[in-house]
Amino acid sequence: MTLIVQKFGGSSVADAESIRRVAKRIVETRKAGNDVVVAVSAMGDTTDELLDLAHQVTPLPAPRELDMLLSSGERISMALLAMAIKGMGYEARSYTGSQAGMITDATHGAAKIVDVSPVRLREALHEGAIVIVAGFQGFNRDTRDITTLGRGGSDTTAVALAAALGADLCEIYTDVDGIFTSDPRAVKRARQLAHISSEEMLELAASGAKVLHIRAVEYARRHGVTLRVRSSFNNSPGTVVYDPARLPEGAEVEESVIAGVAIDLSQAKITVVGVPDIPGVAAKIFKIVAGTDANVDMIVQNVSVAATGRTDISFTLPKTDGEKTLSALGAAKDDIGFESLQYDDQIGKLSVVGAAMRSSTGVSARLFEALFDAGINIEMITTSEIRISVITRADSVNQAALAVHTAFELDAEEDAVVHAGTGR
Amino acid sequence: MTLIVQKFGGSSVADAESIRRVAKRIVETRKAGNDVVVAVSAMGDTTDELLDLAHQVTPLPAPRELDMLLSSGERISMALLAMAIKGMGYEARSYTGSQAGMITDATHGAAKIVDVSPVRLREALHEGAIVIVAGFQGFNRDTRDITTLGRGGSDTTAVALAAALGADLCEIYTDVDGIFTSDPRAVKRARQLAHISSEEMLELAASGAKVLHIRAVEYARRHGVTLRVRSSFNNSPGTVVYDPARLPEGAEVEESVIAGVAIDLSQAKITVVGVPDIPGVAAKIFKIVAGTDANVDMIVQNVSVAATGRTDISFTLPKTDGEKTLSALGAAKDDIGFESLQYDDQIGKLSVVGAAMRSSTGVSARLFEALFDAGINIEMITTSEIRISVITRADSVNQAALAVHTAFELDAEEDAVVHAGTGR
Repeated sequence: MTLIVQKFGGSSVADAESIRRVAKRIVETRKAGNDVVVAVSAMGDTTDELLDLAHQVTPLPAPRELDMLLSSGERISMALLAMAIKGMGYEARSYTGSQAGMITDATHGAAKIVDVSPVRLREALHEGAIVIVAGFQGFNRDTRDITTLGRGGSDTTAVALAAALGADLCEIYTDVDGIFTSDPRAVKRARQLAHISSEEMLELAASGAKVLHIRAVEYARRHGVTLRVRSSFNNSPGTVVYDPARLPEGAEVEESVIAGVAIDLSQAKITVVGVPDIPGVAAKIFKIVAGTDANVDMIVQNVSVAATGRTDISFTLPKTDGEKTLSALGAAKDDIGFESLQYDDQIGKLSVVGAAMRSSTGVSARLFEALFDAGINIEMITTSEIRISVITRADSVNQAALAVHTAFELDAEEDAVVHAGTGR
Repeated sequence: MTLIVQKFGGSSVADAESIRRVAKRIVETRKAGNDVVVAVSAMGDTTDELLDLAHQVTPLPAPRELDMLLSSGERISMALLAMAIKGMGYEARSYTGSQAGMITDATHGAAKIVDVSPVRLREALHEGAIVIVAGFQGFNRDTRDITTLGRGGSDTTAVALAAALGADLCEIYTDVDGIFTSDPRAVKRARQLAHISSEEMLELAASGAKVLHIRAVEYARRHGVTLRVRSSFNNSPGTVVYDPARLPEGAEVEESVIAGVAIDLSQAKITVVGVPDIPGVAAKIFKIVAGTDANVDMIVQNVSVAATGRTDISFTLPKTDGEKTLSALGAAKDDIGFESLQYDDQIGKLSVVGAAMRSSTGVSARLFEALFDAGINIEMITTSEIRISVITRADSVNQAALAVHTAFELDAEEDAVVHAGTGR
């Protein structure tokens, strides 16, 4: 029997009616002859509402208690989903993270899965039940406390269950039709991909594509789990994220050099101005930055101005890490010996991603030419084996994406249909 | 060190502000040098809202999933309460029913506590933490599933924790000031009792007094737990429910023959008309009634009418059990051979309770005289060792209570202050 893991996000189970619709879809998968395990998020805005309550009670909620609080959200949605399925005449049982054997480290709010021991789920599947598991949550063996996985947690739960149970497929249901060549809100002619390799998906997710969380893609890639991203609002087949080593039979891989163009407006740039151009200074700066847990993305060191013996070092990081990083660097001003700090949160990042870049020449030339023709100024550049990213002004990144999308012949013949709620 | 268990109901933790107020009260108990364990209900109307959601999803929610769903309510309130206390600088940890070792049978929705194994709570107390436990919920060892205790569950959780941990006192915080000689909404001159014996409390609770659930009182009585019922909205000392064998030092026991007058408007009367007056017929009727799990209270068999050889049998039961009992009896009409069924939901029950009845004579005479003087017609009578109950018309039971309250010299000199929310 085929085993399929399905994940439904909060917008797919926002109210009683959506829960019944999702239950029907799960039952259809079961009727088609599959074993089904479901990972489910909290209903709609439940998690945000609970967070809000916590902050009404105390300004800095204790992490252990916050996890206890937030984990109740999935408990509600999973129980409702299981009873909806049972109401349709199919056996279903819901399990919390700890009941499902989702063992994590003890980092409340951002726990890492260290082991999955789905004994009870195997028993339930063996007895013919549809299994519903709370996404986003786990359990630490040493403290015996409940943990939550943080951002992207429910996707990761689904992938981890698929890996541990040896599932044939992990379907991520969301409110968009699949993975597109670019964000359809910015690039109207974005085309849905039928397939994308996991390494390309990883680079796209890391570059700002929001449909799948990078952590789930990494987990899937490491454990060879095949993902299918699809909409819970229609029957579109969605996009398969495949491991190139295990290409699904009959899969038509896209012909383009570039799989997609990603846009990211969540980054800011810090420039450390007038740094003494002597060995070890850059190391000193990034040691301080690392101490704040800020997630540095791109780094550029300008050519030193001979007359002053000083240079500028710029790097990008998530805007949410900006304040703490500025204050840590500010406190080390005398130690590092720089002149000033500049903070710029009006930047945009555009990335083109494609596995075929490895064997294709001229990709960067084509990219820069397209940007030049569109009059877009490039401020920073980084490349990986299958990705080129550039920083532009925030207000020109959409225009840049349009130009690049056309230049790499990714445009569809018609505008993409953007569904309500497409924003996650 | 003194160990105090405190229970806070849903109306005491209805929003963030109430949770902070309750947290402050718990911290004050701690500051006074006590170890504190708290059992908490779900916030305000959470349980009803979750039940409503369940019924929106499916008409007959599966009991296992309903328990999974409802148990999330206390998880929310307990985590918020623990973080509020931590926010005030005191160590606090919340525990679910299963983490607290609340072991129950497998009856979803009305589980019985079979064992309490509070290993983690003892550890936490030993480490100086204030312990917060989810009321109303437990865990079955065989099915490894979460259960809920049903009505009166959170009070019972508190009492069971007090018994298992050998607490010195179990305080039940509620929205009334304590136990009164009668319901202050019906009897304005009702007086708050400083003390009441557990057997009297048990009879009052069984007779319709709603402040404490009979199940919690029984558990406390069986395990020798001293209860204090008090308001979470003021500092009134409340009412101590004591085991007469362990009367608290300096306790002033009330002088009255009668501890209280209870009113119950939740009952209905079924009369089986024209029953053949032959041996075994009553047994047949009550076997059928027992089969519906209806909770029969009073039974009256009229004197047989010689001419017909037939008699009437009347009994009272909760209105909520009325429909199923009528239909079970109706289906057995030919088998039993009765003529018709009458259903009367316009009855009221008045009970006077007092341990001193055992040694006082004339209590029933005084009761009946008071009712006669007030022009109240008595329809049925039952007595226990320390209680006399009568059935009257529903619309005269309040007037009856006033008359009896005065006749037994229970009236206070002033009207009782009824606080907002007094209705549970």
